[in-house]
Amino acid sequence: MSFTESIARKRDGLELAESEIASFVRGASSAELPVEQLAAMLMAICIRGMTERESADLTREMLNSGDQWNLAEDIPEAVDKHSTGGVGDTVSLIFAPLMASVGVPVAMMAGRGLGHSQGTLDKLESIPGFKVSWDRKGMLSLIDSCGAAIVAQTEEIAPADRVLYALRDVTGTVPSLPLIVASIMSKKLALGAGTLILDVKCGRGAFRKNIEDAKSLALALRSVARRSGVRCQALITEMDQPLGPFLGNAVEVREALEVLSGRGSLRLRDLSLRLAEESLVLAGRDRGESAETLHNALNSGKALKKWEEIVRAHGGDPDPDLLPKPEEIIEVRAAADGFLRSIDGESLGWSTVEIGAGRRRQDEPIDDAAGLEVCARLGDSIVRGQTVARILVGRRKVDLEALKLKVEKAFEIGKEEMSPPPLVYGPPEDLD
Amino acid sequence: MSFTESIARKRDGLELAESEIASFVRGASSAELPVEQLAAMLMAICIRGMTERESADLTREMLNSGDQWNLAEDIPEAVDKHSTGGVGDTVSLIFAPLMASVGVPVAMMAGRGLGHSQGTLDKLESIPGFKVSWDRKGMLSLIDSCGAAIVAQTEEIAPADRVLYALRDVTGTVPSLPLIVASIMSKKLALGAGTLILDVKCGRGAFRKNIEDAKSLALALRSVARRSGVRCQALITEMDQPLGPFLGNAVEVREALEVLSGRGSLRLRDLSLRLAEESLVLAGRDRGESAETLHNALNSGKALKKWEEIVRAHGGDPDPDLLPKPEEIIEVRAAADGFLRSIDGESLGWSTVEIGAGRRRQDEPIDDAAGLEVCARLGDSIVRGQTVARILVGRRKVDLEALKLKVEKAFEIGKEEMSPPPLVYGPPEDLD
Repeated sequence: MSFTESIARKRDGLELAESEIASFVRGASSAELPVEQLAAMLMAICIRGMTERESADLTREMLNSGDQWNLAEDIPEAVDKHSTGGVGDTVSLIFAPLMASVGVPVAMMAGRGLGHSQGTLDKLESIPGFKVSWDRKGMLSLIDSCGAAIVAQTEEIAPADRVLYALRDVTGTVPSLPLIVASIMSKKLALGAGTLILDVKCGRGAFRKNIEDAKSLALALRSVARRSGVRCQALITEMDQPLGPFLGNAVEVREALEVLSGRGSLRLRDLSLRLAEESLVLAGRDRGESAETLHNALNSGKALKKWEEIVRAHGGDPDPDLLPKPEEIIEVRAAADGFLRSIDGESLGWSTVEIGAGRRRQDEPIDDAAGLEVCARLGDSIVRGQTVARILVGRRKVDLEALKLKVEKAFEIGKEEMSPPPLVYGPPEDLD
Repeated sequence: MSFTESIARKRDGLELAESEIASFVRGASSAELPVEQLAAMLMAICIRGMTERESADLTREMLNSGDQWNLAEDIPEAVDKHSTGGVGDTVSLIFAPLMASVGVPVAMMAGRGLGHSQGTLDKLESIPGFKVSWDRKGMLSLIDSCGAAIVAQTEEIAPADRVLYALRDVTGTVPSLPLIVASIMSKKLALGAGTLILDVKCGRGAFRKNIEDAKSLALALRSVARRSGVRCQALITEMDQPLGPFLGNAVEVREALEVLSGRGSLRLRDLSLRLAEESLVLAGRDRGESAETLHNALNSGKALKKWEEIVRAHGGDPDPDLLPKPEEIIEVRAAADGFLRSIDGESLGWSTVEIGAGRRRQDEPIDDAAGLEVCARLGDSIVRGQTVARILVGRRKVDLEALKLKVEKAFEIGKEEMSPPPLVYGPPEDLD
């Protein structure tokens, strides 16, 4: 069967055979199929959807398109953590040392900034000397020496995903459940940690804007993981506003250090503890005991000490004074009295990219010092003229007046009181 | 708005603005939009459809992407004819001299073989010396000298269509009503004849397999034409079997000469007369009188004489003895007794391409002598061993045994009597 016929079958809403999905994925990674055919198939999948069987086949073919590290073979208890993407999400930097400090090894393959969201790798690279490129052997020795490894995806992991991901970005086919599931899970399964905790973001700053969509994504991801023998839980969490107060690179590292010292943002602290607790429960530990152990690790300085070990093992210098600092700070003030009704997290994320914390073009250098501080939360009572945000200006030249206006506009102030949404909605079952 | 956003809007079933459709078409003809974005948009249009307004905008933008000849300005009464494609469809070769012989000028921009169907230009080029490349001025002087011009589309007519057509072919987006309408009508309106008669083929050898689909295509094409001020009628006609008995190039020219001489295939004769009659009615003539005039033109030899004039005006030699002849003829015989229940016209079309009458690759030369003769019709009583088809072998080397088997298989013989479908279903109104 020609690939055009397969495209036409999916166009008509038919179920693709395993061999057709294999041709699609192999054609993508080998560049044997022209991009116009890949793009047409992506759109047909995006609109027509896929059955569970097709989705599982797609994930497996993408996994098989590259190297598989099978970390669980060497370190069965290693935990991986994944967030579906939001802003002010500094959790990975807290989760890794926190888990390692209570004796659970952490193995994460992290990403760079994408669209409006900042990436864990970019944040870590704001630490002088911190190295993110490691092979499987290097990753194992990192975990062996300090209990955690956060590394960059290699070229050889799920190469089909790299091709399809780049195409999805320009063809309007990003928000397709089976495509998202295959993209995330092919990489997670290629790393091969035995335990996986998923943070599925839900809200206007996230990819899934409503609970129903977030729930179906959580269920789909967890089902693929579990069918592959991975201990997995998924929590749906609120992304109607930035998670922590800082958006950027060095600024997020600094905020992580605050939380690891038992201080800092309560939202960041609570979500990090909850994800860590769920991971320990997945590993068979008692929930109550786990919660206590984790709280103690933060409050006693044990987690902070582990952070320093991890940074050193990755070649970095953990001295917080070495983190780059903004050159100037610009206050953004509330335009009205009232209550903070909504925060456009996606817009704030784009402003953060613009000021220097992200790449507007593939090859643009990042300014580690630049970023944004969010000083108000949903439901807060606001007085006209109070600071709602601060622009942390680095070296990149931008139109600061326009940016200030854009940031101000991201905060919508209303007349009525409102109660903020919960931070954690829970696993998909809790939402029935 | 970025083009990715437009793709996403069509993906979600929203109506595109005029400016978004303009960006799409300009991006295609200028090559400013990458093919993956064009392909994704084509698939989204194919699945989600377009409103009448979007479809009209798409046609107009594609028309505006290139030259417009506006022939009606110089020759207001010129008639154009278009068929949506089938096999054994020799009508254009009959229609043009027939119309010209009764004093109605004919202006046609014809195509080459495409897929399983043979093209009018390829057929004409089997006549020694016949030239199909003419510019606007050349076309006008042809009509002036002999009353008809059949020319090839130039590079400058609807260039966006060329880009999108090639993409549709490989992305499974060919059978989309708004895309078909824009492709056909942008070229017809670019030529700009004041009268247009459309032959919308319906059946298993055509693009529209059932009446409902053919009807919606006929209505959509006619509506775009009429809204642009073109006098237009569309007839839905049967393509459950090849129209005339011959498939190929020189063989179809020879069959046209038979019909122009008052003999030959009754189906070809009847359909040519009916399309010509509708064209005369569109021009305001009386139906009964027109039918009589047209019959007389065929029976008196007037139409044949006009054919010779037209061929000479285009640089060709009308002597039928100069048409290339097959080197060998292979009989294909019925495998069973019974009644001819179905003919796979598409498969016979592909066999015709294979034997040499078409191009299997873009650059393959055509063998004018090669082709196929279909010797049985739907509903015919068949005796095992009788000839149902003849393979007219030219110089191209092919596996004749395999081809013979393929041709034989295109004829399905059943036990029950059946009545053949009508040749002309009529204009869309007649099908309510």
